[in-house]
Amino acid sequence: MDAAEWDIPPADEVIVRCRRLFEPALREAVSALHPWSARMASFTLGWADAHGRPYEGNVGKSVRPAIALLCAEAAGADAASAVPAAVAVELVHAFSLVHDDIIDLDERRRHRPALWKAYGTGPALLAGDALLALAVAQLAGSAEAMPYLSSALMELVQGQTADMAFEDRPWRGPGAVTVDEYTEMTLGKTGGLLGAAAATGVVLGGGAELAPRMWRMGRELGVAFQLADDILGIWGDPTVTGKPADSDLRRGKKTYPVLAALATDGAAARDLAALLAAGAADDEAVRHAARLVEEAGGRAEAEALADHYLSSALDTMDACLPDAADLRALCGSLIDRIH
Amino acid sequence: MDAAEWDIPPADEVIVRCRRLFEPALREAVSALHPWSARMASFTLGWADAHGRPYEGNVGKSVRPAIALLCAEAAGADAASAVPAAVAVELVHAFSLVHDDIIDLDERRRHRPALWKAYGTGPALLAGDALLALAVAQLAGSAEAMPYLSSALMELVQGQTADMAFEDRPWRGPGAVTVDEYTEMTLGKTGGLLGAAAATGVVLGGGAELAPRMWRMGRELGVAFQLADDILGIWGDPTVTGKPADSDLRRGKKTYPVLAALATDGAAARDLAALLAAGAADDEAVRHAARLVEEAGGRAEAEALADHYLSSALDTMDACLPDAADLRALCGSLIDRIH
Repeated sequence: MDAAEWDIPPADEVIVRCRRLFEPALREAVSALHPWSARMASFTLGWADAHGRPYEGNVGKSVRPAIALLCAEAAGADAASAVPAAVAVELVHAFSLVHDDIIDLDERRRHRPALWKAYGTGPALLAGDALLALAVAQLAGSAEAMPYLSSALMELVQGQTADMAFEDRPWRGPGAVTVDEYTEMTLGKTGGLLGAAAATGVVLGGGAELAPRMWRMGRELGVAFQLADDILGIWGDPTVTGKPADSDLRRGKKTYPVLAALATDGAAARDLAALLAAGAADDEAVRHAARLVEEAGGRAEAEALADHYLSSALDTMDACLPDAADLRALCGSLIDRIH
Repeated sequence: MDAAEWDIPPADEVIVRCRRLFEPALREAVSALHPWSARMASFTLGWADAHGRPYEGNVGKSVRPAIALLCAEAAGADAASAVPAAVAVELVHAFSLVHDDIIDLDERRRHRPALWKAYGTGPALLAGDALLALAVAQLAGSAEAMPYLSSALMELVQGQTADMAFEDRPWRGPGAVTVDEYTEMTLGKTGGLLGAAAATGVVLGGGAELAPRMWRMGRELGVAFQLADDILGIWGDPTVTGKPADSDLRRGKKTYPVLAALATDGAAARDLAALLAAGAADDEAVRHAARLVEEAGGRAEAEALADHYLSSALDTMDACLPDAADLRALCGSLIDRIH
C-alpha cells in the first residue's frame, strides 16, 4: 500500500535548493492547524520527535514538491511561483503515508514509529484528514491547478483501493493479478500525485498550456518510480529504505517483480508460487523467494519496464521543457539506483 | 465526535423534492469509484445492505444538500444549478461520519452497523478518503465555490480535533472546557459544512455576492443544530435518533447541556460532577445524571442558545433571500423538535 519512497542523497543540491524554497511555507501551513494536529504533522513530516521536540533526521525525500518547483522553473518562471503546488503535493503525500500505515498496520516509517503507533489510531486518522484538508486549501482558489490536485486525490485513493483488493486474489491461475492490472494501479497510486506535481507546477509557473502533457509525464514517472520501489522493497538495503529487508515478500505483497516472475512458465515460477501459497514466513524462505523471483526474470522485467516508462517521461519532458536540466537530473537519479 | 444528525420526517416534502434533484447525481458520482469503494459508499449512504443488495431504509436526512439547493433557488436560480454543491456537501458529511465512527469506535450508525464494523477498519478508512476525494472533485473547477468547501473541510477536521482534545480535560475546575470553547468548536465542526452548503449553493445559483453572508448564516445554523443534537443525545427517543438512549452521557461525552450545568453553582452541579467523575456507567446513574443536568439548568440554557443562533441565522436569511420560504421552513423544523 505504500506510495513509493526513494533514497535521494540528502545532500543532493537540487533537492536542498527546492526544500529551502517550499519548507518555510509548509511549516507555516502546518502551524495553522489545531496544536494537536500540528504536533502530529510535525512528527510525521520529520521535524519533531514524538514529544514535540525539534528533530533533525528523516524528513521525506521531497521529490514531489521538487518536481512542482522545477516544472515551474523550466516553464520560465521563478520556481517560487509554484510553492503552493509544492506544499499541496507534499501534504497529500504525507496524508497518504499516515493513512496507509494505519490500513496496513505498519509500525515503522522512516526509521521511526508510524504516526498511529506514536499517537494512537484515532488521532492519527484525524491528523491524516487534517493534512489532506490543508493540501486542498493550498490550491482551492485556482480553477486551473485544483482539478489536477483533485484528480490525483481520486487516483491515489482508487489506486490504493485497487492495491488492497489485489491482496485477496490468487498468486497464479485464473483470477491472478496481471502485470497490466498492476501497472494500471501504479499509474493511479503513485503516478497521479507525480502528475499533479508536474501539472500544477507548470500551471502556477504560467505554462497552463503544457499542463496536460506534464500530467501524463508525471504519471509515467510515477510508474517508473513505483517499479524502482518494488525492486528495492525486495533487494534494497534496509538501512537505506528504512523498512525491514524483504518486507514486501514477507508480507506477501503483490509487487511487479513477483507478478512478472509468476507469469512465466519455468520451474522457478512454479516453486515461487508454491512458496508464496505456503506463506514465506521465515528469513530463509523469504531469501529463497527473492532468488526465485530473480531466476524467473521478474527483477529484469521490472527494471526494463521502469526504464521504458522513465524514457517515455523524459522524452515528453524534453519536448515540453527543453531547459529542464535540474528536473531531468532529479528524475534520472531516482531510477539510477536500481541498476 | 459525531456531526449532528437530525430526525426530519422522511415525508417532508421539501426534503423529498431536494432528494429527487441531487440523488441521481450523487449515485452517478459514487458509481465512478472503485467497485469496492462504491459498495461501501452505497452501504454508508443507505442504498445497499452489507452484501451490496439494494436497501430501502435509513438514508441520511439530506439537510446539507437541501440547504445548498434551496439557497440557489432562493437566489433566483433553478435549484438544479446547485446540484454539484449538494453532492459535494453530502459526500463530505458521509466522509466525516465514516471516519468519526472509526475514531470513536461507534459500532452503530442509522440503526445499522457502522461501516468499519461491516467492512473492517482499513477498507472503511479508505472508503472515507474516497468519499472526500469525490467531494472535492465536484467543485474543483469552481474558483468561487471551492474555497468555501475547502474552508469547511479545514473547520470540520479542526473542530473534530478540538472535540477529541476536550475528552482529556476535566469536567470542572481549572482546565475545564468552557461553554464558549464548546460553542466555538461547534461553529467549525457542524457549522463549517452548513456554511459551505449555503455559500456554495448561492454561488452556483449565481449569487456569489451573497456567499460571505450565507456562509455566516450556515455556521450559525450549524451551532443551533448541534445544540439540538446535544439535547436529543441526552433526552431524545432512541428509536428516532438511532443511537442508544443517553449514549452521550454514558460515554462521558462533553456536550453543551452538561458543560452549562457544570458551570452553575448549585448542589445539582456538584452532584453531577461527582457522578461524572466516577463514570456514570449503569442505566440508573445515567438517568440520574440526565436529571441533574436538567435540574442545574443545562437543558434550558442549551435550548435558549439554540434559539438564539437559529434566530440570528433566520434574520440573515430573510435579509439576503427574502423568497426563501422552503429554506426557512426546513431550518425552523430542524430546531422545533427540541421544544
